[in-house]
Amino acid sequence: MSYRNQTADDAIKALLDPALVKRLDKLFFPKSIAVIGASDIPGKWGFLLISNIIGGGFKGQLYPINPKKDSLMGIKSYKSLADIPGEVDMAVMTIPAKAVPDAMRECVAKRVEAVTVITSGFREVDEEGAELEREITKIANEGGISFIGPNTMGVGSMYNDMVAIGSPVFPDKGGVAIISQSGNVGIQFMMWGAARNIGVSFFAGIGNEAQLKSSDFLAYFGMRDEVKSVAMYLEGINNGREFMDVARAVTAKKPVLAMKTGRSATGSAAAASHSGSMAGAYATYSAMFKQVGIMHATNPSEMISVAAAAATVPIPKSNRTAIMTFGGGWGIIAADECDVAGLTMPKLPQYLIDEIDKILPPFWNRSNPVDLVAEGEPDKVLKIMQLLADWEEVDSIIALGVVGRLSFIENFVECQRKVDNTPINVELKAELMSDYVRRENKILTEIAAIQNKTGKPIINVTLGSGDNKSIFETANGNVMVAASPDDAAHIISQLAGYHKYLQSTK
Amino acid sequence: MSYRNQTADDAIKALLDPALVKRLDKLFFPKSIAVIGASDIPGKWGFLLISNIIGGGFKGQLYPINPKKDSLMGIKSYKSLADIPGEVDMAVMTIPAKAVPDAMRECVAKRVEAVTVITSGFREVDEEGAELEREITKIANEGGISFIGPNTMGVGSMYNDMVAIGSPVFPDKGGVAIISQSGNVGIQFMMWGAARNIGVSFFAGIGNEAQLKSSDFLAYFGMRDEVKSVAMYLEGINNGREFMDVARAVTAKKPVLAMKTGRSATGSAAAASHSGSMAGAYATYSAMFKQVGIMHATNPSEMISVAAAAATVPIPKSNRTAIMTFGGGWGIIAADECDVAGLTMPKLPQYLIDEIDKILPPFWNRSNPVDLVAEGEPDKVLKIMQLLADWEEVDSIIALGVVGRLSFIENFVECQRKVDNTPINVELKAELMSDYVRRENKILTEIAAIQNKTGKPIINVTLGSGDNKSIFETANGNVMVAASPDDAAHIISQLAGYHKYLQSTK
Repeated sequence: MSYRNQTADDAIKALLDPALVKRLDKLFFPKSIAVIGASDIPGKWGFLLISNIIGGGFKGQLYPINPKKDSLMGIKSYKSLADIPGEVDMAVMTIPAKAVPDAMRECVAKRVEAVTVITSGFREVDEEGAELEREITKIANEGGISFIGPNTMGVGSMYNDMVAIGSPVFPDKGGVAIISQSGNVGIQFMMWGAARNIGVSFFAGIGNEAQLKSSDFLAYFGMRDEVKSVAMYLEGINNGREFMDVARAVTAKKPVLAMKTGRSATGSAAAASHSGSMAGAYATYSAMFKQVGIMHATNPSEMISVAAAAATVPIPKSNRTAIMTFGGGWGIIAADECDVAGLTMPKLPQYLIDEIDKILPPFWNRSNPVDLVAEGEPDKVLKIMQLLADWEEVDSIIALGVVGRLSFIENFVECQRKVDNTPINVELKAELMSDYVRRENKILTEIAAIQNKTGKPIINVTLGSGDNKSIFETANGNVMVAASPDDAAHIISQLAGYHKYLQSTK
Repeated sequence: MSYRNQTADDAIKALLDPALVKRLDKLFFPKSIAVIGASDIPGKWGFLLISNIIGGGFKGQLYPINPKKDSLMGIKSYKSLADIPGEVDMAVMTIPAKAVPDAMRECVAKRVEAVTVITSGFREVDEEGAELEREITKIANEGGISFIGPNTMGVGSMYNDMVAIGSPVFPDKGGVAIISQSGNVGIQFMMWGAARNIGVSFFAGIGNEAQLKSSDFLAYFGMRDEVKSVAMYLEGINNGREFMDVARAVTAKKPVLAMKTGRSATGSAAAASHSGSMAGAYATYSAMFKQVGIMHATNPSEMISVAAAAATVPIPKSNRTAIMTFGGGWGIIAADECDVAGLTMPKLPQYLIDEIDKILPPFWNRSNPVDLVAEGEPDKVLKIMQLLADWEEVDSIIALGVVGRLSFIENFVECQRKVDNTPINVELKAELMSDYVRRENKILTEIAAIQNKTGKPIINVTLGSGDNKSIFETANGNVMVAASPDDAAHIISQLAGYHKYLQSTK
């Protein structure tokens, strides 16, 4: 495994110019940021960037630049980049498109090596914009600058507390890196992820990719230890060969997902006019992803869930799964969803039936899915889970309703209060709830232990409501909780497909 | 329309025995409930039922029955049904299966006409259980009792504040009625619905359907004004002809959805062993649903969303839709999802382009999806929505990111606080947030007005996070907010299919 990773690292490194790596380090881990086009007019991009960088808790130096101001929102401001006393690691530009070439020249003069060009009005608009885009790219190339954009929402680097993004979005630190050709889609991934506590490492809103391409970020994220999985939203790829080489190297090391729009004619046409990229035939992309081991997600929900799982659980060694369920109906729904997702569900062998017979009452269903017939005692539930995980004919488990029942408990406690007709006893309620949380934490910690011991992913499906956490941290590692049975089935199907790819390359 | 409804009402009435209607009234609107098998041992069914009936706020008389107790949880308790002084409209049984026949006889003696048999251990277990099931059905039939179950989670009647259910689940009052062959699935629908504020009118956990069948509840809900749409979870149907007659009559009046498990061989086998119903060929069911105008949902998320929308928005007169979006990427994703869901997206006619030209800056995309290029001013956004709704070539609108940005605003306000470096000004924050809520309410109210005026559904997709409300009440009526673009596309596709069915029956 470590040898394999070593090789994979070498392969990625061979594809990345060391000078570029240094500049990408400055893009994502700058000690100082200049915002060219800073503003104190609420709602303007130059205002939002300052606001979000500070709001995100950036610890480094922030230099607003505005030719008409000495200070902005209480922060010392500079008339130009040249006026800044110290070094500038990264510059964010949010000025009119026509002013970008000059600003890029100022960056060259100031030896700023990493730039984010938020500004739109380039290739995506007209030929004049395209010409302007070629001009800024030339200036950057000749001046030793790596830049992301133009026409991007910005960059995020959660382990550097840096949200150099036009939207106020603050996910937890975590393993998922996001590369998005659409700013709003990338940000939405983070918003939904944040609501489900799916942690993010990096965000790259790549926009028009005038210079830095999706493949550059993919390679960089492939090398960074913070990144456990990479999720890409793509409307098109212009450097197909390079992209494939990079992808092949990165997928050898860590899971990579892509969502590609343009499945439909309308979507394809809209994509072409949006980011100005060649949309290309959807089927071609799909085949390409398969060839290089990229998991292909067909909608945003699948994208977010699979990326989170890929950063969290072991990769299953086959598509054979066992289901355990707290309710018969959900087990059936899950079995259907597994079938649709191409998973197989082996029959329970006699020895397993005999073992589970010792735990469950005589009327249990004796088949896969295993219906726990409402047996909720943690030790018994975990014993059955351990038996299923040890079963050699399956490589993953879907556990329905084993965790995530806090809202039931909450309602239950509230009912008791009404039955007793006493005023709310806040302390008692808190005690009951924390009892439940302790119980659930115990189960989750044991699930992580079983997962570690067997190397088989255990995807839990919450049957509660309201508690939307997807990733639970325990003393034994992280546990994944999916939102629905179809979500769980897609996760295992995608990860098993990734394992199959890895096997095929051995 | 009223004539049509009149006919539909007559058709439904013709299928329902008036005596049965009277008894179903007692099942869902009892003034008094006896719980046969009441217990004060926490966790027992007899405990949970008492707890949930009280917790749900039931206003009528509650009679716990337990031969060993004088009072239970502070409530006067009775040794037997016969001891109860007043009338009992409905009895809930949660006693061992073998005791059910005697309890049913006691109900006959006490002239209880509506009974819920929670108890399991009947047909779903073995032949002995099946014999017991036939016995209780015979007693009920001869004694003038209508009963639901056995092997059910119970019944809920939100407009009667009655949760005679084993789980503590308390959705808002609303338009969706649920019929579920699996108790846990039906309850999960309500839990997820509650988290998304999707209101429920009735819940019928039909269990083994020894006597009362899904079709009885479908007919009853078809006649009740509280019910705006019916969602059914089915593992199988044993009275196909009757079911179809009822369904045909009800769908003529209001939207009906079904989710049928057993798509896969494994799921089908599991269903057979779960509720003891004949699973039958999935394709046969699908064809049958189509024939009688039932919308067929393939997974739980679709089921919940479409049922909520069907209870909320007008039925679109075709599958032609217009998309308006706050972000280009999401527009493309939505266009793809519409295509997959079988919707068509006509091209914008010149007159519309000219009109929108007057509102949006020159660089807007001039096609469907209409990208609002971040124009957030409510009057302008609503003007464009009105133009699209008036456009004769479409019968529905998907609006992405027009509503649901509260979490963005929240983060924005929080950033400002950090920028100003002042302690949290709770009042100012509250003022900013309520400003935003007022703005959003204005937009939603206007959307409802446009929807009313044009009779075209406007499905909003929230691009926020955390705020999971699906149905917004406004002065002009309710507005539907879907969770994702694919959710919105499925909603319109299903409802347009329903309209097509209605047209075909004219």
